[in-house]
Amino acid sequence: MNSDNFPFEIEGKDGKARAGVFHTPHGSFQTPIFAPVGTQATVKSLTPVQVEEAGATLILANTYHLFLRPGDDLIAEMGGLHRFMDWQKPILTDSGGFQVFSLDGMRKIDEDGVTFKSYIDGSVHRFTPEISVAVQQNLGADIMMAFDECANPKDYEYNIQSMDRTHRWLQRCIDAKTNDKQALFGIVQGGIFPDLRTKSAEFVSSFDLPGFAIGGLSVGETKEEMNAVLDIVPEILPENKPRYLMGVGSPEDLINGILRGVDIFDCVLPTRLARHGSAMSFTGRINLNNQQYARDPRPIVEGCDCYTCQHFSRGYIRHLLISKEMLSGTLISIHNIHTLEELVRQSRRAILSGTFSRYAEDFLTAYGSN
Amino acid sequence: MNSDNFPFEIEGKDGKARAGVFHTPHGSFQTPIFAPVGTQATVKSLTPVQVEEAGATLILANTYHLFLRPGDDLIAEMGGLHRFMDWQKPILTDSGGFQVFSLDGMRKIDEDGVTFKSYIDGSVHRFTPEISVAVQQNLGADIMMAFDECANPKDYEYNIQSMDRTHRWLQRCIDAKTNDKQALFGIVQGGIFPDLRTKSAEFVSSFDLPGFAIGGLSVGETKEEMNAVLDIVPEILPENKPRYLMGVGSPEDLINGILRGVDIFDCVLPTRLARHGSAMSFTGRINLNNQQYARDPRPIVEGCDCYTCQHFSRGYIRHLLISKEMLSGTLISIHNIHTLEELVRQSRRAILSGTFSRYAEDFLTAYGSN
Repeated sequence: MNSDNFPFEIEGKDGKARAGVFHTPHGSFQTPIFAPVGTQATVKSLTPVQVEEAGATLILANTYHLFLRPGDDLIAEMGGLHRFMDWQKPILTDSGGFQVFSLDGMRKIDEDGVTFKSYIDGSVHRFTPEISVAVQQNLGADIMMAFDECANPKDYEYNIQSMDRTHRWLQRCIDAKTNDKQALFGIVQGGIFPDLRTKSAEFVSSFDLPGFAIGGLSVGETKEEMNAVLDIVPEILPENKPRYLMGVGSPEDLINGILRGVDIFDCVLPTRLARHGSAMSFTGRINLNNQQYARDPRPIVEGCDCYTCQHFSRGYIRHLLISKEMLSGTLISIHNIHTLEELVRQSRRAILSGTFSRYAEDFLTAYGSN
Repeated sequence: MNSDNFPFEIEGKDGKARAGVFHTPHGSFQTPIFAPVGTQATVKSLTPVQVEEAGATLILANTYHLFLRPGDDLIAEMGGLHRFMDWQKPILTDSGGFQVFSLDGMRKIDEDGVTFKSYIDGSVHRFTPEISVAVQQNLGADIMMAFDECANPKDYEYNIQSMDRTHRWLQRCIDAKTNDKQALFGIVQGGIFPDLRTKSAEFVSSFDLPGFAIGGLSVGETKEEMNAVLDIVPEILPENKPRYLMGVGSPEDLINGILRGVDIFDCVLPTRLARHGSAMSFTGRINLNNQQYARDPRPIVEGCDCYTCQHFSRGYIRHLLISKEMLSGTLISIHNIHTLEELVRQSRRAILSGTFSRYAEDFLTAYGSN
């Protein structure tokens, strides 16, 4: 197991921010990158063509959900996740750990793994590092994640034991992996505690892995606490490997992450907000349910070149929302994903031209102003 | 008011079946044609691009729904229905009558019109022939329908008075119309009664209108009763004008209508079935919720060239249905609309090559066999 099959090239740096290219069996993607989430093997309300047209080149799918339904064995039998959902670009699967450990009162952790109940029918299942890797190998994503525990970020004593166990599980994931077509990323844990984050980053970095993730953030801590962790961890991780901040996806979090050396992001935010009628922009969110947009002939964002903004008015989208028409979620999802992809594309150009710190400063000043 | 602005050319006949072209300010469409329904200014779960790629060249929108929400004045202010929903091909609006008269206990009919309660908030509104035409002019569809009553098809005495009133309303619709950019079609009523249907078809045909519709069918009568009416009415209607069978959309009904000289159809069936997981084919319906399709790698219909069948398996679509993912409705709607459009396209080719009676016979024999 090493990282030779998944090269990462850094094409430019600006401060800590990096512009790179990561290569996978399903093609390359440029970084910084934002991955929309296709929890159940579908980015909600969008066809793969629409996801691609919105600018996405990497998507995430959830191992926990797909293990329970339709089952990773079924997906393997159907030719793997790419073929099953007709997404031919790179896919990343999480380990299932985050969802399992979120099931308060429905799971039991031991040294070997975790026993949990299905959210669908209450049936009992078990994940271990070995099972998580086997399930992810059945799914066939280009990037797999090591099985980790995402602990309460503010409980110091618990984070010590949880982190150490996650470190032991990393070695077991590496040992369990049986193919070279899928990259396995390690995950740094340690809550909001600088000493634990440092220890975890150093430990995980000691493995020759094709990429490294920062887990356990955006789970209840403050923005300042998150940024403090991001001030520490990326500098410890290997320079020549991509860094993935898991589950993070607001525009300001993306900019703050890129400023600190993060390359990959994922989040349900753009599609979840869309289903509730909230559109993203570079200056804040727009609640399209509001009466004030009923007769507004403007696009969600003037000058935006997404399909939605090129063809539909705020007034029309508000009508769809008020009428509970499914097309509202589709159209706003397209816009929201496009907005985050445009943000990482602009960031990349700014990094390559050495103007990113100014770009980020201007962005963070404007964000929230509308 | 005459039909000069909306020419209809018959390019071929085979028995009573016709292949034609109808011209509107938003382009021409070939007949026979099937129009998907966009009740609330959206064909449910589809973008206009997806509707067009599925093969539709005409869609129907509902005056009753759009009058109540968002309001025809708002749509007029936003540039009309074509611009509001970004559908640049022809649109047909119904008169609102069908929905209003379906509101048992919530409406009161008099000679002048009908007073009814909103299904949204119970507020009281009134439609008359003049109001229906004014609302439809605000919407701006290429084809408007005369305001009519769709009565219980089996009540002879009531159909006499209702039909006569509908005839008086037709003259008022014609008088109320104030532009030449929208075609007004008259509607034949008369329930399942041959004498009433004959009288109504003769009366409506006496007006120089650009097209004629057959209303009051597919509302509870048998297939035999519907076909009996279709054996009578089209032959009375002017040969050189399109004939529109309202609200009809199952594959066998389309073939039976084309056989009897009908040119235009509309129905919610393909999109409504899709949302419940039922796919259409030339041999019957396929309930994709069934367990038997869980591991089925085949497309819905082998050889179908719709986007859905070119890219997705029955197993994947079943997974989406079981997981209550919105994409299931989108993918099956694309397939179902494509199926009906392919049916009318094949019918057209058969008419032009003089083989339609054989085509129809083979189709009706195979339909229901799966």
